[in-house]
Amino acid sequence: MRMKEGKLVLVGAGMVGSATLNAILAQSVVSEIVVIDANEDKALGEVLDALHTTSFAYSTNTTIRVGSYADCADASIIVMTAGPSIQAGDNDRRVLAEKNIAVMDAVMAEITRYTRSAVLIVVTNPVDLVTYFAQTKYNYPADKIFGTGTLLDTARMRQLIAAQCNVDSKNVHGYLLGEHGESAFIPWSMVNVAGIPVDELPRAFGLSAALDKEKILADTKAAGLRVLKLKGFTSSGIAQSVARLVRAIVLNERCVLPVSCVLQGEYDLEQVAMSVPCVIGANGRERVLEVTLLPEEQDQLAACCESLQKMLLQLGL
Amino acid sequence: MRMKEGKLVLVGAGMVGSATLNAILAQSVVSEIVVIDANEDKALGEVLDALHTTSFAYSTNTTIRVGSYADCADASIIVMTAGPSIQAGDNDRRVLAEKNIAVMDAVMAEITRYTRSAVLIVVTNPVDLVTYFAQTKYNYPADKIFGTGTLLDTARMRQLIAAQCNVDSKNVHGYLLGEHGESAFIPWSMVNVAGIPVDELPRAFGLSAALDKEKILADTKAAGLRVLKLKGFTSSGIAQSVARLVRAIVLNERCVLPVSCVLQGEYDLEQVAMSVPCVIGANGRERVLEVTLLPEEQDQLAACCESLQKMLLQLGL
Amino acid sequence: MRMKEGKLVLVGAGMVGSATLNAILAQSVVSEIVVIDANEDKALGEVLDALHTTSFAYSTNTTIRVGSYADCADASIIVMTAGPSIQAGDNDRRVLAEKNIAVMDAVMAEITRYTRSAVLIVVTNPVDLVTYFAQTKYNYPADKIFGTGTLLDTARMRQLIAAQCNVDSKNVHGYLLGEHGESAFIPWSMVNVAGIPVDELPRAFGLSAALDKEKILADTKAAGLRVLKLKGFTSSGIAQSVARLVRAIVLNERCVLPVSCVLQGEYDLEQVAMSVPCVIGANGRERVLEVTLLPEEQDQLAACCESLQKMLLQLGL
Amino acid sequence: MRMKEGKLVLVGAGMVGSATLNAILAQSVVSEIVVIDANEDKALGEVLDALHTTSFAYSTNTTIRVGSYADCADASIIVMTAGPSIQAGDNDRRVLAEKNIAVMDAVMAEITRYTRSAVLIVVTNPVDLVTYFAQTKYNYPADKIFGTGTLLDTARMRQLIAAQCNVDSKNVHGYLLGEHGESAFIPWSMVNVAGIPVDELPRAFGLSAALDKEKILADTKAAGLRVLKLKGFTSSGIAQSVARLVRAIVLNERCVLPVSCVLQGEYDLEQVAMSVPCVIGANGRERVLEVTLLPEEQDQLAACCESLQKMLLQLGL
Repeated sequence: MRMKEGKLVLVGAGMVGSATLNAILAQSVVSEIVVIDANEDKALGEVLDALHTTSFAYSTNTTIRVGSYADCADASIIVMTAGPSIQAGDNDRRVLAEKNIAVMDAVMAEITRYTRSAVLIVVTNPVDLVTYFAQTKYNYPADKIFGTGTLLDTARMRQLIAAQCNVDSKNVHGYLLGEHGESAFIPWSMVNVAGIPVDELPRAFGLSAALDKEKILADTKAAGLRVLKLKGFTSSGIAQSVARLVRAIVLNERCVLPVSCVLQGEYDLEQVAMSVPCVIGANGRERVLEVTLLPEEQDQLAACCESLQKMLLQLGL
Repeated sequence: MRMKEGKLVLVGAGMVGSATLNAILAQSVVSEIVVIDANEDKALGEVLDALHTTSFAYSTNTTIRVGSYADCADASIIVMTAGPSIQAGDNDRRVLAEKNIAVMDAVMAEITRYTRSAVLIVVTNPVDLVTYFAQTKYNYPADKIFGTGTLLDTARMRQLIAAQCNVDSKNVHGYLLGEHGESAFIPWSMVNVAGIPVDELPRAFGLSAALDKEKILADTKAAGLRVLKLKGFTSSGIAQSVARLVRAIVLNERCVLPVSCVLQGEYDLEQVAMSVPCVIGANGRERVLEVTLLPEEQDQLAACCESLQKMLLQLGL
Repeated sequence: MRMKEGKLVLVGAGMVGSATLNAILAQSVVSEIVVIDANEDKALGEVLDALHTTSFAYSTNTTIRVGSYADCADASIIVMTAGPSIQAGDNDRRVLAEKNIAVMDAVMAEITRYTRSAVLIVVTNPVDLVTYFAQTKYNYPADKIFGTGTLLDTARMRQLIAAQCNVDSKNVHGYLLGEHGESAFIPWSMVNVAGIPVDELPRAFGLSAALDKEKILADTKAAGLRVLKLKGFTSSGIAQSVARLVRAIVLNERCVLPVSCVLQGEYDLEQVAMSVPCVIGANGRERVLEVTLLPEEQDQLAACCESLQKMLLQLGL
Repeated sequence: MRMKEGKLVLVGAGMVGSATLNAILAQSVVSEIVVIDANEDKALGEVLDALHTTSFAYSTNTTIRVGSYADCADASIIVMTAGPSIQAGDNDRRVLAEKNIAVMDAVMAEITRYTRSAVLIVVTNPVDLVTYFAQTKYNYPADKIFGTGTLLDTARMRQLIAAQCNVDSKNVHGYLLGEHGESAFIPWSMVNVAGIPVDELPRAFGLSAALDKEKILADTKAAGLRVLKLKGFTSSGIAQSVARLVRAIVLNERCVLPVSCVLQGEYDLEQVAMSVPCVIGANGRERVLEVTLLPEEQDQLAACCESLQKMLLQLGL
């Protein structure tokens, strides 16, 4: 079936799915959004709530409806948000992993009945494991499936540094790479603000002290859990992250964003999905960028890989 | 204190407040949003979640922070969303009214310590009663305070008719007027699609039957409760409604939207706040439009007024 | 060849084509724009000037390039702006018509070598004659080709009335119908501001006098020539008109806009292209709307038809 | 007089002014634009052409009108585009400088009768000389006046590099600094694509050869003249540059952009206006950023300064 470029299927209408639906709508780049949720009432409630205001002057008359996996057949993008979220107090990520890999298994079985052409964005956590599982078990084209990975972590790090320099966070550059989780790291050699290296920031921006790199990494990693504890869940940040990817795909922007993808020899790594900067365009992951890392940063990337592979092994994947 | 045109204070960070925060941000028209909530953790959680993604390419570097009522001093817009929402199963709206008028009382006491110049948008339900109470008790300039009223109901009605005609809901015109609640009505003489009167729609759009006006009114009124039952709360629809108003004010659009305002002789009515079409601009409600109503529609408007005044009396207002 | 939904071919890089290119870009809904002009330098100059700023934070990385008619093969939209414009002092529209029909003939011969699937928007004047010629001679699907017609005239009329009422022009409804030219008319029975009929506007908006309908029609018709005389050409208004149509098509909005299309029995008229309200969506003209006209308005529409058919006859079409 | 945050005065309605008007409008961030031109017909023509389409669904009802310098009194932003442009074949920039400094003198005399509070963006060339003259002669607050300088040159350089890497130009970082003209230079130590240094680009993006830095600098500097020769003038690129600045100011974005500002000891330079990266926000130039330059780059900056000071001397400034 011919793909419709502006058609997106959203799987999951929980807090993340709902915020994602509204963030994508606000961008006015897709013409049709189909929502699927095991709880059809929830899906319909979100659809109606979003649909009610398409009559306002600046709202695009996007088609928004509840659908089924058959809608994947001609979709150009599928966003997977289903499955339970991390809860404050969760000690064992393995329990979550097992649950959500089962959820992903069921969803992928459905999706792949209809398509292997849509770009598939995975949000469900632990996103690196879920993405690896989905790509490998279902032989989904590796350039068409990726997880949000450290995209939101990267945004958080940029915002933390921007706040210290009192500057637009869009002028802060750099990434969190590797696992969306404990072993993620910042290759500090790449971080800069408007081209100014980290060590020069105090002079350039009149800061009273140097950036506390360890604190920034720790605060970045803790940011999600902090929001979770403060408001009970996370939603808008991850929703904007997905919306950013959707826009890049629909408009074929070829922009660089860190996403979790299955590596096939890049950085001399394989049999793992984790976040590295990728060129994102109409075909999904258009290119895996092998950025320039210092030897110790390369080691950190390898350590992330090892850590993730260990978890995959524990899960029997 | 000099007003900052792009500064907005949002009171309440519950489901409605949170969705409103994100809907306003998506419009990129304000430069600063200050969130106030009795639950400071909730406020901070929402602020952080929204703030985390300002580094994305198309996100405006809006200042988003938790604040206090002192921030109202130079705000140009204040949005009031605090107070418990209607719950599925609520039989007695009077209980909700009493609770939320007490909440509004406390909030207005704070706001008016700092300003009577900001445009104040009331979302808290029952919105007509809360708006009337706030304006009259605190002598807030009548053109600077209004409730969202039937703005969302109107959007829902337009969407329902648009769906039947398979046409952009922005081409459906008409209003729900009066109470945001049971006595609201549609002056059908004003309803049209792209200039085509209701009775001509079947011919023009190839419909198999005439519009069922009673069903459309009933479905419109039931839409909020339907969403509430389906997803547990309402959020995105009302959030977009507030965002529409905010944009009209910040950009001084002078557009016509139905909002709940205190009438002072318009339509020969007074001592009540209810929804009629108003011109919305930088100064708030720039003009109350007295639209052309048939005699029976004028009666319905008067009946809304009576019904609301009765409730005000019961509440001792 | 499979159509790319976000690919647009723009024929003509003169003042109108150039403004159109930039207006479409500003909307961020297409991913690729190909410009064709007999003067390749001009085309390249416009492409480069537009391309130079895609690096700014809110600019979409749209692919913009000079191309050839072969690019029509997988385009989803083609915009035709080539051919000389009306000049102040032109007395004989027939000369312009003959010139531009020849231009259109050459362009259509090229386009139809590659596609009859793209939606084709005709801007070249006299737009009604050029559209009719192109559709009929090249048997282009009648629902896939239309001219901008009275779309801009309609916008001008709305703006003139809005200015008198001091209200957002988006709240003014109504159309100019028929010819994009001398015989165009306003069916006043359909005109209203936020649902308020023309005769009630003075009361509702506090105007000192009734609307001068004849003056509004005359000023609307004279607006293009006025701009032409004042600035030497027209560009931004017609560019926004095309951009409005492009957005409606790309996002499949199904909105109602008056465009010049070949009638096939609608309003009991045929063998003519002229402007009536149409539903515009992904497939182009999704539906011709037969709006409710008073008998004298129906006569005016018939007179437009007659006038246009006479011109077609004079041109031997 | 109290400043209106959304009010902008545009001086000059030529090709640049006209394109700037429309680029600013497309952003929907200001509520009022006043156009001033010695040729009042031209100003009115541009205003009307832009105004005619505010009725379209996604167009903001911005107030657009012809005005006078008295409108500067409460404007928050003034954009100066008046004066003749560089023509292909101009050999003596001094002639242009003398003409446009005289134009700027007359304009500043008018503006400063009404305000020294508005942020003043200078586009008129030679922009560095004109900016320096205007700031020093009229004692305009140095943080409130700056020229577009190398902002567009910088964008062009980023686009050229992006095209070679087949990546979004928003991921290319770096600047042209110094003069908007012959002595401008690229501090290559700051240039990177998504964090990847210039020398690593071939490996990361699979390029067949290293970047030709000299060619990129030469092509960037020649880009304006190339567009001028191809299309007869430049418009959209510079218009987008101004619009980018306007948005940064209105929304108080605090983003980093290279603009031409009067240096007062930064980089150990003074008595000159030239482009260095600045933080742009509601107050104009919020901070001059002293970026990290290699010794030879520091020398190039000093050479720019010297060259510009020599021209100022020749002009008797």
